[in-house]
Amino acid sequence: MSLWLRFLDWLTRILGVGRRIVPREPVSIRPIGVVRNGWRAPGPASWAGLRSDIILRDELEPMLDGIDGYSHIIVVFALDRVSDGERRERVRPRGDERIPEQGVLATRSQLRPSPIGVSVVALRRRRANILRVEGLDALDGSPVLDLKPYFPNYDAVPDAGVPEWARALAEGPQ
Amino acid sequence: MSLWLRFLDWLTRILGVGRRIVPREPVSIRPIGVVRNGWRAPGPASWAGLRSDIILRDELEPMLDGIDGYSHIIVVFALDRVSDGERRERVRPRGDERIPEQGVLATRSQLRPSPIGVSVVALRRRRANILRVEGLDALDGSPVLDLKPYFPNYDAVPDAGVPEWARALAEGPQ
Repeated sequence: MSLWLRFLDWLTRILGVGRRIVPREPVSIRPIGVVRNGWRAPGPASWAGLRSDIILRDELEPMLDGIDGYSHIIVVFALDRVSDGERRERVRPRGDERIPEQGVLATRSQLRPSPIGVSVVALRRRRANILRVEGLDALDGSPVLDLKPYFPNYDAVPDAGVPEWARALAEGPQ
Repeated sequence: MSLWLRFLDWLTRILGVGRRIVPREPVSIRPIGVVRNGWRAPGPASWAGLRSDIILRDELEPMLDGIDGYSHIIVVFALDRVSDGERRERVRPRGDERIPEQGVLATRSQLRPSPIGVSVVALRRRRANILRVEGLDALDGSPVLDLKPYFPNYDAVPDAGVPEWARALAEGPQ
């Protein structure tokens, strides 16, 4: 890290560039579908084996052609049950006292500033505009914003590094 | 698959349940940051080694505490350079004639109905509200909607199945 780059970083910071260049207009996204699994808040003790249906808008059905060739998909959904007042700057993952408090963006907590969930789930079957998936940690009625096929050569990083406390627990990110 | 379940599926379809229960209101998301890498359209030939800065809104800086403990993060961003007229129902991945045409939701194409990108990238460093990442396939100025730490026990499925043509090419999803 050269002195010159450090200087640029410093300049960027004191000029408040982040405040100025981040787009101010909200991004508006029309849901493509909805989650159906019968689980209203607070959800099951474990989502791992839970089956959900993702029901897409009827007119999007042709856009799914070919999805059954994949064993897994990525589901992007809205965390629409979190109110603005519940959001937090810092959280303790899983409420576990042994874990040091983290900035909320350094966790998968739902109390994040942008209420978006991203989950990798097993695709069990497609029937017309309905996808049956397993392991989706979304409540019944959650708006689905996007879904994508999972490509291991692009999405899987099995040896990605995590903090020591996360490796020690090795149960999951929540 | 029992006859009874088939009947329920059929009923769901003819009653147009998908059309009725998918939330109609758009989800509005305020960007938490912006991508800076100097690449305006059409982007580099390969994104693999490209370094980008993600500049967050200044006031979100404390929410990043702890993110440097992870080697990889998931970046959710808006594909804001795609106009409504460009969207497609079906696409041929990478424009490759050997690949059968796919429904756009069965690809990672940008021409999808909900213009959201999800990328797993290497986190090189954090400095205050600026994250330096490698391999982000987002154009300069793209609004960042969310970012999350990557947990291999939750996000990595190295043996996920893909169609034969994708395995044969094995270059990437685009």
